[in-house]
Amino acid sequence: MTFLSGGIGGARLAYAFQQWNRRAGLPCAFTAIVNVGDDFTHLGLRVSPDIDSVTYHLADLGDQHRGWGRAGDTDAAIREVQRVLPEAGWFQLGDLDIAHNAMRTHLLTEGLTLSEVTAKLTARYGVDMRVLPSTNDPSPTRVRFSGPNGTSVDRGFQEWWVRDRAEPLPQSFEFPLVASTSPAPGVIEAISGADVVVIAPSNPIVSIEPILAIPGIREAVERVSAPVVGISPIIANKPVRGWADRCLQVEGVDCTASAVAERYGHRNEGGLLDGWLVDEGDVTSSRSFPGRVAASPLRFTRGEEDFQIVDALFELAAKCEMQRSVNSHRSVNSLIPQSERITHSV
Amino acid sequence: MTFLSGGIGGARLAYAFQQWNRRAGLPCAFTAIVNVGDDFTHLGLRVSPDIDSVTYHLADLGDQHRGWGRAGDTDAAIREVQRVLPEAGWFQLGDLDIAHNAMRTHLLTEGLTLSEVTAKLTARYGVDMRVLPSTNDPSPTRVRFSGPNGTSVDRGFQEWWVRDRAEPLPQSFEFPLVASTSPAPGVIEAISGADVVVIAPSNPIVSIEPILAIPGIREAVERVSAPVVGISPIIANKPVRGWADRCLQVEGVDCTASAVAERYGHRNEGGLLDGWLVDEGDVTSSRSFPGRVAASPLRFTRGEEDFQIVDALFELAAKCEMQRSVNSHRSVNSLIPQSERITHSV
Repeated sequence: MTFLSGGIGGARLAYAFQQWNRRAGLPCAFTAIVNVGDDFTHLGLRVSPDIDSVTYHLADLGDQHRGWGRAGDTDAAIREVQRVLPEAGWFQLGDLDIAHNAMRTHLLTEGLTLSEVTAKLTARYGVDMRVLPSTNDPSPTRVRFSGPNGTSVDRGFQEWWVRDRAEPLPQSFEFPLVASTSPAPGVIEAISGADVVVIAPSNPIVSIEPILAIPGIREAVERVSAPVVGISPIIANKPVRGWADRCLQVEGVDCTASAVAERYGHRNEGGLLDGWLVDEGDVTSSRSFPGRVAASPLRFTRGEEDFQIVDALFELAAKCEMQRSVNSHRSVNSLIPQSERITHSV
Repeated sequence: MTFLSGGIGGARLAYAFQQWNRRAGLPCAFTAIVNVGDDFTHLGLRVSPDIDSVTYHLADLGDQHRGWGRAGDTDAAIREVQRVLPEAGWFQLGDLDIAHNAMRTHLLTEGLTLSEVTAKLTARYGVDMRVLPSTNDPSPTRVRFSGPNGTSVDRGFQEWWVRDRAEPLPQSFEFPLVASTSPAPGVIEAISGADVVVIAPSNPIVSIEPILAIPGIREAVERVSAPVVGISPIIANKPVRGWADRCLQVEGVDCTASAVAERYGHRNEGGLLDGWLVDEGDVTSSRSFPGRVAASPLRFTRGEEDFQIVDALFELAAKCEMQRSVNSHRSVNSLIPQSERITHSV
């Protein structure tokens, strides 16, 4: 199983997958492909917020209350920055978080790729799930605003998201370097060889789409023979966390589970999704999605609910696979005489 | 007054100067020119150990017990590095120290020079003494060892000094990039315009000589009309701190106050020093130095003893100046008829 992941929502799903896997007594054969569009260099440190959220959750080191950063972290260093050079202190990094980013920076300086660094650090933390950056090439997400006299200005994603708390509403999100990036080693294989591809309940616009924009990744998802299923990041018309609503608004997408599914699109219509897992309250409004829709309570709790979500997801995937198999036979069938066609009951 | 400074010894002298100045009720007109040969990039952070020691002491933030780092610092981040990636955890950086280095790195990344960063950070810490890096160009000190089969290998200074605790004894110290450096803005002017030039009780081989090796600095000290006086870093044949004895050994210099003075040389003999301030116990053995020698207890205490050291240093400088004035008149006198010569009683 391979899933595309942003930060917190993806990290919680990753943890659920890990616990599900462990309960099943299976060695972890899951791969996370994680957004690097939010990555930036801050205070000299190479910060990869989404990779870190996934890593910390898998290593059971994540702060559960905030959703990001390390549990029990202290903030001696960043408070000093805020005191002495407040203009550089807007991105909250705990002392353990700084240590983690300093290790990444050290290893990158030593010549390792981001993939290699991520593999090394996750291994040191005892994580057995494979965590892959979507790409080892820089591909920062930029946020564009209209400037005076018909001009436009852009800003780094973290400046807008964290420092400016997603204000004001931008014109667009851009991935200006993405065309010259390649998927990190193993990414295409992890998608092509997966028995299920999952799109995590992450921000579709600034977490999942930056992954899909890397040349080859969207195509690999489109072509995969396995079912592709997504989990809605929107519950009851609200993002579970963060300002996904504002990101959707920029793209003219309603903040609903069904609108996000439509944004990804149904595979039969040139989109990505075979199936869409929504919160129980969103089933009715999601009927417009032409693919298969299933429902489950979607809030991760690190308890029994997480297993239910994974079970519901895999059940949905299994149904989608069966459907695909039927469709594929149908299309094969259409080429062969009526009398020799295989028939299925679904 | 301008002084050349390494780390801890220079930092303690800087603090003594500052307190002397404040007691005198004078605005600080002192300039520290600080070694950057120890600077390196570690864990992504641009570390300038000598500038930081001087800055921390002047800001009264320095750890007095260790001599380096910040008082009351915590070590959450570096302990995490040591736990997860021990190979990168050998350079002890407290959390506040990491904050300081992160701010330096941030400002350098923004395009400021090391001079500008140092001016900005010292100002933010409320330091009124001018602290200048010797150069804004990279000029790392390297440590060279004989390798197998007549080859040689080199190592960064901090790796040898901190990680390997000055083991083994190297063949030589080298400043491979120094020929292409320039003094930082203000350095030459601070020397040329000084009323006294002081060489701090710092490691002569790896703190002071890397400053003097920057093209133009030694020449400026040699040409300055003001007296040049040094304070011995050696007391009773031992370095006050660190492994200066090992550095001197590499260069074939005895670990004595007088041998260090001879290394700097007397101005009349093509060297740098007019006068040399030694510890009271080292007066007799320092008589071989052809310049003026004065004595004082040389251990900084941050109390009355510090004022005594500064007083003794300035008294020595005044005597050296008088002597230079006499000598200069003598040399002028030698050009004019005997009957018209000025005579002095010293």
